[in-house]
Amino acid sequence: MAKSKYEYVKQFELEDTLLPSTWIVVRIDGRGFHGFSDRHHLTKPNDIRALELMNKAAESVMFKTPDIVLAYGQSDEYSFVLRKNSRLFERRSSKISSTIVSLFTSNYVWHWSQFLPDEPLQYPPSFDARCVCYPSDQILRDYLAWRQVDCHINNMYNTVFWAIVHGGRSETEAENELRGTSSAQKQEILFSQYGINYAKEPEMFKKGSVILRQPTTVSVVSEKTGQPVMREKMIPTISFVDMIKDEFWIQRPYLLGST
Amino acid sequence: MAKSKYEYVKQFELEDTLLPSTWIVVRIDGRGFHGFSDRHHLTKPNDIRALELMNKAAESVMFKTPDIVLAYGQSDEYSFVLRKNSRLFERRSSKISSTIVSLFTSNYVWHWSQFLPDEPLQYPPSFDARCVCYPSDQILRDYLAWRQVDCHINNMYNTVFWAIVHGGRSETEAENELRGTSSAQKQEILFSQYGINYAKEPEMFKKGSVILRQPTTVSVVSEKTGQPVMREKMIPTISFVDMIKDEFWIQRPYLLGST
Amino acid sequence: MAKSKYEYVKQFELEDTLLPSTWIVVRIDGRGFHGFSDRHHLTKPNDIRALELMNKAAESVMFKTPDIVLAYGQSDEYSFVLRKNSRLFERRSSKISSTIVSLFTSNYVWHWSQFLPDEPLQYPPSFDARCVCYPSDQILRDYLAWRQVDCHINNMYNTVFWAIVHGGRSETEAENELRGTSSAQKQEILFSQYGINYAKEPEMFKKGSVILRQPTTVSVVSEKTGQPVMREKMIPTISFVDMIKDEFWIQRPYLLGST
Amino acid sequence: MAKSKYEYVKQFELEDTLLPSTWIVVRIDGRGFHGFSDRHHLTKPNDIRALELMNKAAESVMFKTPDIVLAYGQSDEYSFVLRKNSRLFERRSSKISSTIVSLFTSNYVWHWSQFLPDEPLQYPPSFDARCVCYPSDQILRDYLAWRQVDCHINNMYNTVFWAIVHGGRSETEAENELRGTSSAQKQEILFSQYGINYAKEPEMFKKGSVILRQPTTVSVVSEKTGQPVMREKMIPTISFVDMIKDEFWIQRPYLLGST
Repeated sequence: MAKSKYEYVKQFELEDTLLPSTWIVVRIDGRGFHGFSDRHHLTKPNDIRALELMNKAAESVMFKTPDIVLAYGQSDEYSFVLRKNSRLFERRSSKISSTIVSLFTSNYVWHWSQFLPDEPLQYPPSFDARCVCYPSDQILRDYLAWRQVDCHINNMYNTVFWAIVHGGRSETEAENELRGTSSAQKQEILFSQYGINYAKEPEMFKKGSVILRQPTTVSVVSEKTGQPVMREKMIPTISFVDMIKDEFWIQRPYLLGST
Repeated sequence: MAKSKYEYVKQFELEDTLLPSTWIVVRIDGRGFHGFSDRHHLTKPNDIRALELMNKAAESVMFKTPDIVLAYGQSDEYSFVLRKNSRLFERRSSKISSTIVSLFTSNYVWHWSQFLPDEPLQYPPSFDARCVCYPSDQILRDYLAWRQVDCHINNMYNTVFWAIVHGGRSETEAENELRGTSSAQKQEILFSQYGINYAKEPEMFKKGSVILRQPTTVSVVSEKTGQPVMREKMIPTISFVDMIKDEFWIQRPYLLGST
Repeated sequence: MAKSKYEYVKQFELEDTLLPSTWIVVRIDGRGFHGFSDRHHLTKPNDIRALELMNKAAESVMFKTPDIVLAYGQSDEYSFVLRKNSRLFERRSSKISSTIVSLFTSNYVWHWSQFLPDEPLQYPPSFDARCVCYPSDQILRDYLAWRQVDCHINNMYNTVFWAIVHGGRSETEAENELRGTSSAQKQEILFSQYGINYAKEPEMFKKGSVILRQPTTVSVVSEKTGQPVMREKMIPTISFVDMIKDEFWIQRPYLLGST
Repeated sequence: MAKSKYEYVKQFELEDTLLPSTWIVVRIDGRGFHGFSDRHHLTKPNDIRALELMNKAAESVMFKTPDIVLAYGQSDEYSFVLRKNSRLFERRSSKISSTIVSLFTSNYVWHWSQFLPDEPLQYPPSFDARCVCYPSDQILRDYLAWRQVDCHINNMYNTVFWAIVHGGRSETEAENELRGTSSAQKQEILFSQYGINYAKEPEMFKKGSVILRQPTTVSVVSEKTGQPVMREKMIPTISFVDMIKDEFWIQRPYLLGST
């Protein structure tokens, strides 16, 4: 309602529209999560409670943002994929990234005590976010493969590294032992020295978390009768699947088909 | 550590550097705060607890971000002014806006129960954010004046509007009565009909909140002796002052001088 | 070689990289070509000499810029399509558009007297340019169809309009007569009143000009013998073909296949 | 006039508005001018005819673009300074840079034979262009100082370099002799070995060319009487002055005052 001679300053807000008809990925990253993990005594290399909290926050973002077709998370990062022709906030980059990171953060803090009831939040954590456009389905797939390969490589390394450290040696010794080792060698160390079969590690740790909208039978209150009835709805659902191979995409043609 | 054939997708992250040597303002806005206020029974036109929570969150952002020289808040919005030559995140727009909005949101949720102990948070709120560059001191001042005039006009309107409604009439009646009234007429209605002297309304409501770094004597633990000692530090401090007139800037030459 | 304390001003040159893996179209448009046409007594609705000069300038741009896979021109505009994965000038938008518009303008002025020998250039003409990214083959095709449909509609209108005016009536009368007429009605007016069969109008006028690289036998000097020999080279070649129907693209799979 | 189902492709043209209230500098640079100079037998280190042609082209750009308050050229580059509050083409970056580079190129080719009558143009030259925003008067001054210092340093070097080469030694020998020499040493070599007093070299070579609008008495045809009358107009005028020192700006307060 307010008009004043100062209104002219609005002209300085420049447009930051994202190219239409491209996949928009919003990636958020934890800020200073190394220290944050230490301060909250998170287990290493993976803290299942903290990962599930990340998943919960991401799931909530998807509930509020119908244009997100898929989300992928690992460690302290999450990527949200908006459908190619999304008109969310007229595709304004800062509006999209700021809203999603704010919603994610809000849920993260809000749900904290539910997932880590014995570990009071010591200070408010934060995340950053950016929007990136991917012009083709293949490049979007490569983006997701990039993050999932990153998860795999980091998790393999961290699993062995912390096995060595928890086994009583220093972090420097662990680094030295692992320098230059292949994936096969790391698995061998893990198995022969620590009795850990990497293949049996939790899928969430090895693959990260994928959230998709799945047809799910849920109980809703009927508008007609006021009674609870069962309905099938598309509900964000977490799984730990491989997105690198073709199979994932062949089985879900609606994902890349979602314009 | 992870390198893969998928790394090429990083090229799609385009630069969004803000013009050097300009004032950067990050403005955050509550999303859906009309409904949020109703749901949490916030008092109208102003809920002092909610405003103080906003101030607390903003103060925390300033504590974590030394490059912010001034912050200004009113209603469900806050503006953070970064010094002209800030190199924060190499002046990358989305990094700056997303980090600040995330930190703000995080603090807002985290401090909620401290400021509204009797009003449990029903769902996680969110904010959006944008960066705007202002090339000169005068235009920055005009930006802040714009927001403060906006606060004044809205608060005046809302104060009368809710006086009428709380007096027992409908919102439509209140709207009709106020349509086309001048500022003087609104004050007259307020005083003659509801006995409220607008001039005596709280400064926080009329002017919004300004946060500046003020030299403040604080107790810190001496590194030498381990004993608490008093030190003067620059501490973000809230006040409800007029930034429209020259006086504010003349008295604080360091603000615009902060390059 | 020059370094000075003033070098810092280079920081103000912000990046304007175009999204990778998208078709880049550089469209140039004549500035003030209505007046320019009048001043140089160009025939209406089409001046074949001026159109051929446009084509010559575009052809020269293609000779100098291997990344251009196709160019399309009509009236005083030309569009140049760079292949999807072009790395020309690291995909910097202003570098690409300014270089192409400069080269085009330069050739236009330089070749003027060859195409319009009896019409001395009265003053230097100018063009503007912009880069636009198209993320998919289909959208690129739609862009080219947009320009070609535009050519068709404008040419049809202009052909009748100028037939009426050349037939002795005023421009206002011509406008009035044509207001609201369909394409079929325009052709009917043209044929019944002016004896012009629109279908027999030159293809260049109706479709605009398409420049493609075609395998062409050209004479080159052999490096070994110093003698002229015939070689097949890909040479920019002008044709007046329909790009709207699928046929054009089916017959030339290498066009969209050119990454 | 043409509307079609393809119109949607216009959405892909994203805004590139330049920040309001900042000085816009459009810098154009010759492309491949080393080879171009050789091919046209331009004299070294400076060809006065070619420099005057550059100046003529720049002057013509200024005649057509009232918002340009100052232009500065040296070698094969020219910078055009648009006033801070220029609304030229709504401050769209590519529109501004492409129009100016096109107009410059057009004039360069068009005036070529007038300035180099004995040296036919062998092929059409081209330039690139970019827009850069400078938020304050001081930074604009530093930009211009940067280009003028660059001119000075390059011209000093080139003057000695070509004196040595014209004196009969190889380019490699010249490079070796000059490596690491100070400005004073270069002047000493120039004077003692080649009898050239650098201070007496033409100002245009040492300082580059500055174009300003100067009040100038010109003959115009009176609208009333149809007779030629003398009027004072602001006419783009070339001079070879120092813009680095304060004096230039103090004497011309209207330059930085031109909003």
